[in-house]
Amino acid sequence: MPPKQVDTTISPSATGDALNLANEHASDHPLKLYAGWFCPFVQRVWITLQEKNIDYQYIEINPYNKTPEFLALNPRGLIPTLVLPPSEDSKQRVLYESVIVCEYLDEQYNSGTRLLPSDPYERARARLWVNFVEKKLVAGWYRFIQHTPDKAYTLDEVREEFLGNLKTFVREMDEEGEGWFRKEGFGLVDVSFVPWAGRLWLIDYYKAGGVGIPGQEEREKLGGEERRVWERWERWVGAVMGREGVRRTWSEKGEYVGVYKRYAEDQTGSEVGKATREGRGLP
Amino acid sequence: MPPKQVDTTISPSATGDALNLANEHASDHPLKLYAGWFCPFVQRVWITLQEKNIDYQYIEINPYNKTPEFLALNPRGLIPTLVLPPSEDSKQRVLYESVIVCEYLDEQYNSGTRLLPSDPYERARARLWVNFVEKKLVAGWYRFIQHTPDKAYTLDEVREEFLGNLKTFVREMDEEGEGWFRKEGFGLVDVSFVPWAGRLWLIDYYKAGGVGIPGQEEREKLGGEERRVWERWERWVGAVMGREGVRRTWSEKGEYVGVYKRYAEDQTGSEVGKATREGRGLP
Repeated sequence: MPPKQVDTTISPSATGDALNLANEHASDHPLKLYAGWFCPFVQRVWITLQEKNIDYQYIEINPYNKTPEFLALNPRGLIPTLVLPPSEDSKQRVLYESVIVCEYLDEQYNSGTRLLPSDPYERARARLWVNFVEKKLVAGWYRFIQHTPDKAYTLDEVREEFLGNLKTFVREMDEEGEGWFRKEGFGLVDVSFVPWAGRLWLIDYYKAGGVGIPGQEEREKLGGEERRVWERWERWVGAVMGREGVRRTWSEKGEYVGVYKRYAEDQTGSEVGKATREGRGLP
Repeated sequence: MPPKQVDTTISPSATGDALNLANEHASDHPLKLYAGWFCPFVQRVWITLQEKNIDYQYIEINPYNKTPEFLALNPRGLIPTLVLPPSEDSKQRVLYESVIVCEYLDEQYNSGTRLLPSDPYERARARLWVNFVEKKLVAGWYRFIQHTPDKAYTLDEVREEFLGNLKTFVREMDEEGEGWFRKEGFGLVDVSFVPWAGRLWLIDYYKAGGVGIPGQEEREKLGGEERRVWERWERWVGAVMGREGVRRTWSEKGEYVGVYKRYAEDQTGSEVGKATREGRGLP
């Protein structure tokens, strides 16, 4: 069945904490973030801007109804799109692809949190795990929420694969420190996954049996290593979700339910949704 | 039909220019490249090592028959794997994922070619096009060579999409300079695609109708923009394929025919081949 054309039921603007933050950044500024309040890829960049204390203008775009002005800036029409202050020769400078934009901001601005380590080997190791997040956890999240009974693979298979990858990710986290992926501090690996970590409850909401992460009672019955993994996961979730730069980017929970209904029915017309439905990598 | 287990017909070592180069780098060295002579992802790193005049040890691995010693170094078993000289505290340091390894080498070693621009915005733009190469051109190359009549999409559809993406890539190339993607010089965008550019003839060999890039006679009949695109493409191919750091990494042409037969039949057991067959992004 072809997807319907436009998601008209989606709130046209952020709500809750994210609305407050968007309003604080509504005035004209040469650094502009073209954003969608519900887009997790946008959220990575939004968190990065906050973490690095960079000033910017937040501009809400409906990715299902892009304005001609926006498409003139970025013909590929992807959000997040970052428009930079004009260069000395007045050339228009535009970036997109969330991880690339986050790396750019980290390299260009020395303020606030340093998201990637300065040592080239440690930086490469962080990129390896951002890559793992992208290819396994994020791609897996969409396969999970978009699963329908007509797929060539079962919901149980999707769940098992997702949990396996999640455990691999958690086993790589440092035991020491405040809970971040790397004990040295909150960084790009954390940023890269937190938007989907904060959307796991949507899989519990929409998919029979849910994500399958054991709750506290279940964990206590588990054996040593398995239990340690899920306790470490909870510690990470607590740390990243409590972080101010993360907290301020969330809209009201109920608003996400409507947005992801069409993903759960595998009817979304979003780029990432279509790629997942067609059996491709993330666009 | 499940793929057969092992490709036993593949030459156990490089041949031709690549064998000469591998032999020059056979002696023990603290920087070790675990490689497969026919693997295009390996070739990206091999070219980078040559371009940057870095000394290293080349170690041939059969990716279909990995040794326990290799799997102890990298449990994910992916090539290329780069083993670094031990750190001051004697910790084993291992990297993989070809683009991440190339970026690491460019950041760690100041010698030879600078593969990424030093300006953060220009660096981000280069990363955008490396990303395009990976997600569109490389993924498309595998969809093309692994196309079989039972797929949900036709060979013509694959070809049209591939050529469309290739033209988008070529239109982004600078008109000035010696032919490189960026007029400033040979860089990571060039490195990222040259292994597959040098394997396009395998699609001509195995797939009815071939890649579909117009030859010189056809080009001369084409209209202005279309003709300019394919002339620019030829100029790029000439420049990158003539580059010494690239030329020395090729084995004898005929050896690739056997390797890619199993891809052309969609029977390969390689990681990238399986992911393409299962309808996923690159692993």
